[in-house]
Amino acid sequence: MQPLGEFDLIARFFKRPTPHAVVGVGDDCAVLQPRPGTQWAISTDMLVAGRHFFPDTDPGQLGHKALAVNLSDLAACGAQPVAFTLALALPEAREAWLAPFAQGLLALADLHGCELVGGDTTQGPLNICITVFGEVPVINGRTLALLRSGAQAGDDLYVSGTLGDARLALEVLQGQLSVPPAVLKAARTRLQAPTPRVALGLALRGVATAAIDVSDGLLGDLGHVLQQSGVGAVVHTDVVLQRLASWRALVPWLSEPDTPLSKARLLGWTLAGGDDYELLFTAAPAQRAQVAQAALRAQTPVTRIGQIEAERGLRLLDEHGQPLPNTFASFDHFA
Amino acid sequence: MQPLGEFDLIARFFKRPTPHAVVGVGDDCAVLQPRPGTQWAISTDMLVAGRHFFPDTDPGQLGHKALAVNLSDLAACGAQPVAFTLALALPEAREAWLAPFAQGLLALADLHGCELVGGDTTQGPLNICITVFGEVPVINGRTLALLRSGAQAGDDLYVSGTLGDARLALEVLQGQLSVPPAVLKAARTRLQAPTPRVALGLALRGVATAAIDVSDGLLGDLGHVLQQSGVGAVVHTDVVLQRLASWRALVPWLSEPDTPLSKARLLGWTLAGGDDYELLFTAAPAQRAQVAQAALRAQTPVTRIGQIEAERGLRLLDEHGQPLPNTFASFDHFA
Repeated sequence: MQPLGEFDLIARFFKRPTPHAVVGVGDDCAVLQPRPGTQWAISTDMLVAGRHFFPDTDPGQLGHKALAVNLSDLAACGAQPVAFTLALALPEAREAWLAPFAQGLLALADLHGCELVGGDTTQGPLNICITVFGEVPVINGRTLALLRSGAQAGDDLYVSGTLGDARLALEVLQGQLSVPPAVLKAARTRLQAPTPRVALGLALRGVATAAIDVSDGLLGDLGHVLQQSGVGAVVHTDVVLQRLASWRALVPWLSEPDTPLSKARLLGWTLAGGDDYELLFTAAPAQRAQVAQAALRAQTPVTRIGQIEAERGLRLLDEHGQPLPNTFASFDHFA
Repeated sequence: MQPLGEFDLIARFFKRPTPHAVVGVGDDCAVLQPRPGTQWAISTDMLVAGRHFFPDTDPGQLGHKALAVNLSDLAACGAQPVAFTLALALPEAREAWLAPFAQGLLALADLHGCELVGGDTTQGPLNICITVFGEVPVINGRTLALLRSGAQAGDDLYVSGTLGDARLALEVLQGQLSVPPAVLKAARTRLQAPTPRVALGLALRGVATAAIDVSDGLLGDLGHVLQQSGVGAVVHTDVVLQRLASWRALVPWLSEPDTPLSKARLLGWTLAGGDDYELLFTAAPAQRAQVAQAALRAQTPVTRIGQIEAERGLRLLDEHGQPLPNTFASFDHFA
């Protein structure tokens, strides 16, 4: 197959109609017209081969994931996706990789009405950098964006979906653990093609007091909310393990070469696994019915796992309500 | 020195006040409030070590250049810089590299009132991806953005500043050529710390019919304007060489190991050198006084190098007005 030139490549795989943009792909800049009464939420994420994904990851899933992790940031902000840019460094421009990558990427973009309006392609070690733009309404001069800084003492603490699935897949793929093929398949989809909780984020506008997406592990990301809100929290780890670790029922089928899987290890995957892309949010107890309604409307389960408290710091409780030491490290890209 | 964690790193080097943003660095998204009557111009560029810059490039200049190439896209669009995001993959988080990189980056950002509102940092082969946002007025529903598609038959064709300096520096740094240290220093600044023509782009709003920034070489970038405008052009190569190749006077001092520097080679650097970051634009002959005024206001020289014609294609003329074959390849990141 002939190697493709840069401009051919953009035109063939990434240039599509952009009905919402004033100017789309192919000029020095894209030009977008913000709607009156809205603000723009912006987020950028970079995925690096060998660090965020295995170099042999299915390119379709990789295209999906690269956009999904960005849409997850918009979801945590309660923003409606509008558009995105894609910068792509590739070792070589191969159609067999680019075609499925573009397909996975653009299928998720279409699902959320999020237009690819511009980008850059270059030769280099595989690196995918996406920047997304979403719309947030402003009402009477106040933003409806969900922020990390709004949690109040007394608020309930919630998490959407399930946690630890991606970590389970990672352990298996790294050869630390073996599981039946059907279990791996489900967990691997969560790792390689996560579902951003966009609908839930939109439904929580005006209901949640604070939100963040769980990408580096529940406890680490909760720490950002607590710090930026100037509060503390108590987390019921038994609820987390029983309600959020969907694969817990599979434990009898999990096996490891050397040591038995300890409960602490399972809890670690759930509390600090990483790559979950669920929403962690807070809401006043008076809003419990509204939270339930938002979860129903978004068709996304949510679980109440604790409370926000005025006393700073994070307190973990075990199934007997006794303090549990926090030995669960969260993910740091330079640790 | 201790390696820095990801969050320390962001806080120490890149977190600054963002007076124009509703929400700045440190939440899931930045939130910006577009001003009424404006559209947003967006551009993204990715710089890869070994491809776009030497791995040992001065980090301060690299910080400058990474933003400059993006501001150059805003300039070509006639957009006023507002904000940018930075995604950074680094082999290791070293203060001795990060401090000057941030300083170079943020000094240029401050010069243009362009706020760093968000980003991402990760471990990986050195890669810098910046996305910039600029403001363009809309008047009576019409965008004032300068586009590639607006050139008309009969328009004059202009280039700002000088061309080929970056290519000269590259040839020397790659050991193809030797020049006196003072010449290298000047050329190297153009290669490693180019000046984006933001003021000129703003001054050309309502004056120029089309514009593009010259990043991959004059002729290649002109080709995009011609294609998207559905027109052709004639270019006077003697004007280009005599007026835009500032280093031409230095030719007697240039030396090469093997072959003498041919005029064709010099012309090639000027017409297709790459990394120039000048503006190429078109304007009606009736606008010559306005173009001159714009150049004065922006304190940026501009040179008229040819005309747009209805007949498609690019025609180069030599100093006698005779056709010159176009053998000057432009830069393709995958060629």
